[in-house]
Amino acid sequence: MDVRSISTHCARTEFVGTTVLDTIGLVISGIDPQLLKEMNIGTRYHALGLLSSRTGAAGQITAVDDAVKATSTEVLSIDLPRDTKGWGGHGNYIVLGGDDVSDVRQAIEIALERTAKYAGELYISQSGHLEFAYSASAGAALTKAFGAVPGQAFGFMAGSPAAIGLVMADIAVKSASVQIIRYMTPSIGTSHSNEVILALSGDAAAVKDAVLEARQAGLELLIGMGSYPDIPGTPYL
Amino acid sequence: MDVRSISTHCARTEFVGTTVLDTIGLVISGIDPQLLKEMNIGTRYHALGLLSSRTGAAGQITAVDDAVKATSTEVLSIDLPRDTKGWGGHGNYIVLGGDDVSDVRQAIEIALERTAKYAGELYISQSGHLEFAYSASAGAALTKAFGAVPGQAFGFMAGSPAAIGLVMADIAVKSASVQIIRYMTPSIGTSHSNEVILALSGDAAAVKDAVLEARQAGLELLIGMGSYPDIPGTPYL
Amino acid sequence: MDVRSISTHCARTEFVGTTVLDTIGLVISGIDPQLLKEMNIGTRYHALGLLSSRTGAAGQITAVDDAVKATSTEVLSIDLPRDTKGWGGHGNYIVLGGDDVSDVRQAIEIALERTAKYAGELYISQSGHLEFAYSASAGAALTKAFGAVPGQAFGFMAGSPAAIGLVMADIAVKSASVQIIRYMTPSIGTSHSNEVILALSGDAAAVKDAVLEARQAGLELLIGMGSYPDIPGTPYL
Repeated sequence: MDVRSISTHCARTEFVGTTVLDTIGLVISGIDPQLLKEMNIGTRYHALGLLSSRTGAAGQITAVDDAVKATSTEVLSIDLPRDTKGWGGHGNYIVLGGDDVSDVRQAIEIALERTAKYAGELYISQSGHLEFAYSASAGAALTKAFGAVPGQAFGFMAGSPAAIGLVMADIAVKSASVQIIRYMTPSIGTSHSNEVILALSGDAAAVKDAVLEARQAGLELLIGMGSYPDIPGTPYL
Repeated sequence: MDVRSISTHCARTEFVGTTVLDTIGLVISGIDPQLLKEMNIGTRYHALGLLSSRTGAAGQITAVDDAVKATSTEVLSIDLPRDTKGWGGHGNYIVLGGDDVSDVRQAIEIALERTAKYAGELYISQSGHLEFAYSASAGAALTKAFGAVPGQAFGFMAGSPAAIGLVMADIAVKSASVQIIRYMTPSIGTSHSNEVILALSGDAAAVKDAVLEARQAGLELLIGMGSYPDIPGTPYL
Repeated sequence: MDVRSISTHCARTEFVGTTVLDTIGLVISGIDPQLLKEMNIGTRYHALGLLSSRTGAAGQITAVDDAVKATSTEVLSIDLPRDTKGWGGHGNYIVLGGDDVSDVRQAIEIALERTAKYAGELYISQSGHLEFAYSASAGAALTKAFGAVPGQAFGFMAGSPAAIGLVMADIAVKSASVQIIRYMTPSIGTSHSNEVILALSGDAAAVKDAVLEARQAGLELLIGMGSYPDIPGTPYL
């Protein structure tokens, strides 16, 4: 096996593309039935779309949320591995299904493109990281992953080391009239990541305010640990 | 969002300080009641103190043990995320409560100061790591985290790769008349860390001897893997 | 404690050796009975052999499989910590038992030697990793770890980011008449690693073909993420 004989320009039919955060998008046009049964995602769809990253969770899930809204596809599973390439958080592994492979491929193309956008609210320093997400109208992926209320505004914040996440959560719920829809810690709901995570629902302006106030506080605390974060995109909130 | 507009000298009221091992200490003077309910730590205390690190567990828990003894505060929760910034162990996320925010702040100040001391028994090489802790008289944090017997001597050892931890554990229990109070492996009790961990109780001299003999053996094995460990403090045992 | 006073040439009786992937091999000639009870591995054997690595799972388990076949020893436990030294997979921690310490030591020597060989099917790039294993006749370790059928051919593949693992799995089961014996994802069966893992049983030629086709596809996708993998050995399949 000489790996250098393989091109970095992948020509396989499964390959859709890659983007930031070690994210790859793939399609399987007709999944093997024996394997599909093991996957525990139902047996309706044989055309599957896959989005999978070493780093990031809320951003990619929000990207898939957009993708599913825009195509005839359905979210079948969302896994949050303990990864982030040496940092304290999650990666992601998301499986979509569709009746038509071209729908699935289009969904993954959209998800890759939006992942690049939503990576703008990920802040990674030498000490820890912060992640934020916001959607004016939650769809199927945000509902499946975080119990978002379909059609309502959705806000998300994660902070690592975990204590920063709790301070952000406290500031967020105090800042505006919002409902907590998911609360996660190293022991509750995460894959033992070093994060406190809060997901919010409510009125769009209130949810966005809550996320922005949490972001300001979280950045002040993270930067107070002594180094400035890198941002793998452009902040969009 | 221009992150460079934020100072590394954090002026937020929640900020207490930072120390080695990407540790941050924070206080929340009056936690939001909706969030407090989600936290599953009881509702008695509204002033919370937070200690949270990317790396280390026993050292910080021993530091909090000292802090709680010295102040009118109580340990409410101890989480062990799978972290260590790319290494095979845990970080920590500890929540304290108190009736008075100044007590809580003082507890976190003590915990930060003692974390710097106890980090002297953490040894991190290119291949793995070792962590040791000892307390002549275990308090509430060590009891909550490892089932220590209050008022008795407490000893702790963790080794990674895990097999080194088992050899240390064997040497420790053979070396002196001590009781095993907690045994942890990648599958049992840890957050899937690559460690065998042993916590001991017993007579002070016996427990200390057991930890010191384990440390000697563990260092010989870890260094036998080919590189010398860094120590993020000064050995104190 | 001056760590520089300790030699990198370990002379302890427990030390057997080290090899690639931060792997250490150790023996305990007579484990402490109090500790043995905690280990939950039965009480028959007091001579224990330990193999433990920061990185790799199937390779080391296949190495132990060979070692147990060649000696009078038994596999007592196999743990898969979430490690890989910052990458998205597992390390391993394997405990063997034997009536005679020389048998156990010999088993660990064989396991170390074979680990170096089997590390040739581990491919680690800047974006993710792939691991493959194959045995013409599965023994006790592969049976214990992955439900292999004793005496039948065994094939293994893991891909990270996880989506690459699913595409490899699909190609493998389509390529030949093989049975799925284990299917693992970040949420199922792993320690929250960022992998999809498939273990196969069946006719030797079919299983080997399935692994080789999966390897080709997996390498094309991993390299399509933009960088070539390092291989900590020489590919042997």
